[in-house]
Amino acid sequence: MKVNAYAATTQNAPLTPYSYNLEALGSEEVDINVSYCGICHSDLSMINNDWGMTQYPIIPGHEIIGEVIAIGQGVKNVSVGDKVGLGWMSASCMSCDQCMDGEHHLCPKSEATIVGRHGGFADKVRSHWSCAIPLPEGIDLSKAGPLLCGGITVFNPIILAGVKPTDKVGVIGIGGLGHMALKFLKHWGCEVFAFSSNPSKKQAILDMGASQVIDSTNAKELEPITGKLNFILNTTNVALDWNSYLSALAPKGKFHTVGAVLEPMEIPAFSLIMGEKSVGGSPIGSPALTKTMLEFCVRHHIYPEVEEFPMKNVNEALEHLESGKARFRIVLKN
Amino acid sequence: MKVNAYAATTQNAPLTPYSYNLEALGSEEVDINVSYCGICHSDLSMINNDWGMTQYPIIPGHEIIGEVIAIGQGVKNVSVGDKVGLGWMSASCMSCDQCMDGEHHLCPKSEATIVGRHGGFADKVRSHWSCAIPLPEGIDLSKAGPLLCGGITVFNPIILAGVKPTDKVGVIGIGGLGHMALKFLKHWGCEVFAFSSNPSKKQAILDMGASQVIDSTNAKELEPITGKLNFILNTTNVALDWNSYLSALAPKGKFHTVGAVLEPMEIPAFSLIMGEKSVGGSPIGSPALTKTMLEFCVRHHIYPEVEEFPMKNVNEALEHLESGKARFRIVLKN
Repeated sequence: MKVNAYAATTQNAPLTPYSYNLEALGSEEVDINVSYCGICHSDLSMINNDWGMTQYPIIPGHEIIGEVIAIGQGVKNVSVGDKVGLGWMSASCMSCDQCMDGEHHLCPKSEATIVGRHGGFADKVRSHWSCAIPLPEGIDLSKAGPLLCGGITVFNPIILAGVKPTDKVGVIGIGGLGHMALKFLKHWGCEVFAFSSNPSKKQAILDMGASQVIDSTNAKELEPITGKLNFILNTTNVALDWNSYLSALAPKGKFHTVGAVLEPMEIPAFSLIMGEKSVGGSPIGSPALTKTMLEFCVRHHIYPEVEEFPMKNVNEALEHLESGKARFRIVLKN
Repeated sequence: MKVNAYAATTQNAPLTPYSYNLEALGSEEVDINVSYCGICHSDLSMINNDWGMTQYPIIPGHEIIGEVIAIGQGVKNVSVGDKVGLGWMSASCMSCDQCMDGEHHLCPKSEATIVGRHGGFADKVRSHWSCAIPLPEGIDLSKAGPLLCGGITVFNPIILAGVKPTDKVGVIGIGGLGHMALKFLKHWGCEVFAFSSNPSKKQAILDMGASQVIDSTNAKELEPITGKLNFILNTTNVALDWNSYLSALAPKGKFHTVGAVLEPMEIPAFSLIMGEKSVGGSPIGSPALTKTMLEFCVRHHIYPEVEEFPMKNVNEALEHLESGKARFRIVLKN
């Protein structure tokens, strides 16, 4: 079966039309007709080989919404015709301790949709059945794509940290990931503080559910919340003044990063000890939790703010993202 | 009432006999006749003004076992004649959010037994009633002192981290604190890995319940446990190769420090993110948890390994500790 896609053939290159043939379908695999595919910052990172693991030609795209068009003999859970979502992970071993424990996303042999294989900027994409998440009835297909990677990445920490509706929480960086975190936390019942250094986003951030917007470049604005927040989620990947955020945590507060800042985080032990605080991190989330998240999204009408581009205008869309103009997430439509 | 004590009158000075008079007893205060008092490293730190907060003359001592000899009109929970233990904390405000939540040890106004007031290297000591923990029936008074500070400091993290009997856990530094952690964790049902760089302690460490002793100065000994440990407790206050310990953690593993290393801990965000790991810390523990710990100790006959010195030989005992000869905890007897 022929797949029509868009690929970068060398580092930093613009995407060009690219076709390839799918081999015979594996017993546990499914093929998906791509309806929509979100664009994530990690698509750019992979196009540019920022992480040194890109194989060219690369077909990016891992926030996929589509319909199952073929299934292998051993496939469970999904049938031809089902609407599914596919995110960062396209397969796991299904048998290691993590997989058997429901934490497939922590499987050391897990496979990523756009690492060493072909992603969703295409008319079709393939995955293991376990990663093709059945979509709940009533979901808005045109906006759901970004939930499969960016969404679950910020939803998982809320679960891991045991955030309660009575908690005061902070979100650092209100971009593609951060704005989805705001919406989740608003519907969680929390008092939400958004840390943003972009004044032009302020009203949009308040509209999305933040109780207050704090200019993260102004240390004085942090002062009134010293010792107040039960949970802070960092969605940026730049070095921050970690200790000032630890100071903003209440006793027993948790700081959690999903942004993979490259420099080691300098964490004073004393700041952790005196308030029983902790610093943690996480990648995406499990297939089971992704399903739970999607149900929560439908129940509360939680969707990312998306700008839609036709799939064929993928380069224009990538340029829109790279130049920092995207507000807040981009979805490509086939 | 006159108190006969031992005090350092200047920085680094040997202790000398020192007497003072107790003022009228406050409504919520109790006076305790000191039977035994453990020596903690923080007593040395305070004598030497390592933390810049020592007021001289200083009477150290905050692992106290004794008998209540006087109570104020508003005292609850304890009566004259009760055997009690008093640790690092001698009072808290009883009304802030932390105190009302049972976390008195996180009270911003909490008072430390030997900071700006007189401690337990003496025949008497005073505290708020809430910090004079009633001792359970059958406890060995001569060995219980170190449980009140060192013991609760390593017991609290086990509770905070939700360590399970099925967990594999590591303890870094098998000294005064670490050896008590080994004993708790053995009776918790865990498989316990002791990290120690002192080969002469190996047999004693195994006897105390460690499943295996790992030479923490030998990176090769860490290799076989890569990705295995659910929880690691650090009791040392020196800069470690944090990332190699993070690598020893299993997915979702927790690294916890009670050692207040002065240099910031350099924590790679990527190491936290990929395995959903976290780094936390804690000080002592709450009065309620201290009481629970003491009951657990009596039920399982858990006591520190102690060397006993007469109170009048306090300088000899301090020298024994400072020279690194103490195995594993020292108790002064009145």
